[in-house]
Amino acid sequence: MSKIAVIITDMFEDIEYTRPTEAFREMGYYLVHVGLERGTIVKGKASGTPVKIDQAVSDASVDDFDALFIPGGYSPDRLRINDDAVRFVREFVTSGKPVLTICHAPQLLITAQVLKGRRIAGWKSLIQDIKNAGAEFVDQSVVEDGNIISSRNANDLPAFIDASIGKLGGRAH
Amino acid sequence: MSKIAVIITDMFEDIEYTRPTEAFREMGYYLVHVGLERGTIVKGKASGTPVKIDQAVSDASVDDFDALFIPGGYSPDRLRINDDAVRFVREFVTSGKPVLTICHAPQLLITAQVLKGRRIAGWKSLIQDIKNAGAEFVDQSVVEDGNIISSRNANDLPAFIDASIGKLGGRAH
Repeated sequence: MSKIAVIITDMFEDIEYTRPTEAFREMGYYLVHVGLERGTIVKGKASGTPVKIDQAVSDASVDDFDALFIPGGYSPDRLRINDDAVRFVREFVTSGKPVLTICHAPQLLITAQVLKGRRIAGWKSLIQDIKNAGAEFVDQSVVEDGNIISSRNANDLPAFIDASIGKLGGRAH
Repeated sequence: MSKIAVIITDMFEDIEYTRPTEAFREMGYYLVHVGLERGTIVKGKASGTPVKIDQAVSDASVDDFDALFIPGGYSPDRLRINDDAVRFVREFVTSGKPVLTICHAPQLLITAQVLKGRRIAGWKSLIQDIKNAGAEFVDQSVVEDGNIISSRNANDLPAFIDASIGKLGGRAH
């Protein structure tokens, strides 16, 4: 079964987590919630959507997954201060496996220092951070650059989900 | 009377607002809360401290103030998508008047493109963003570089308040 790692902690943008994960599940993907501590419940910033952490990122290996999904909100800001989270994201981007980012998610890629020369969309507050990281900020609903699929915000979710499932190769086998 | 502009919006870090502003008031400073819309009430992310916006940043001029204070939390992330807020912060830094920043506040200075060559402290999630902006991240409780006083987080508040009041010139006249 195809497995997607969802790296997440408190204050994620609820809808940027719920809608893509529902679509990925419907397409047959198995989701593993990777976070700071296994067994804890993290919550979104809007409606408080509870999400149980299946695996600590300190124990997570890129080899065990087919793709990485990074929801937005303030979860990426909280994850990027954790060395294991940054290492996991860096290894995923350099592995060539699909990395799906939306809204504030590029913050993790900046700290992982894997954005140089890439084209990426993200939340508009990050525009200068993305440029300073040596990347090109692209003001489109969805951007595909190599293994990275990126979108700006929750309004882009339909395009983000379509492009992500396309990148994953359609229905999981 | 000496006037300090406090640029602020929702999701500020409560204690990083309340403790410095109490100290500034005790020292005789008059605070003007500058935000996105005059008359609205903004709230902190922890205890929801209500703060009334006295002046829209679109109407704010550096000439009317003696210093700028930028509390942390997620308020800077929300302010940096507003062109007037970015312009106001840029004008303050280039004016040479004291600019007091803590935690996530350097995000506004990054978008204002005024950090190049500066030495600054801030919340650890911003370390790579600060370096990419051409500044030196300094891991100290308080850093003074020209007109900018900066601290890392709420634990640094005593040092931040002392250095800020020193920079302001002590008791207001």
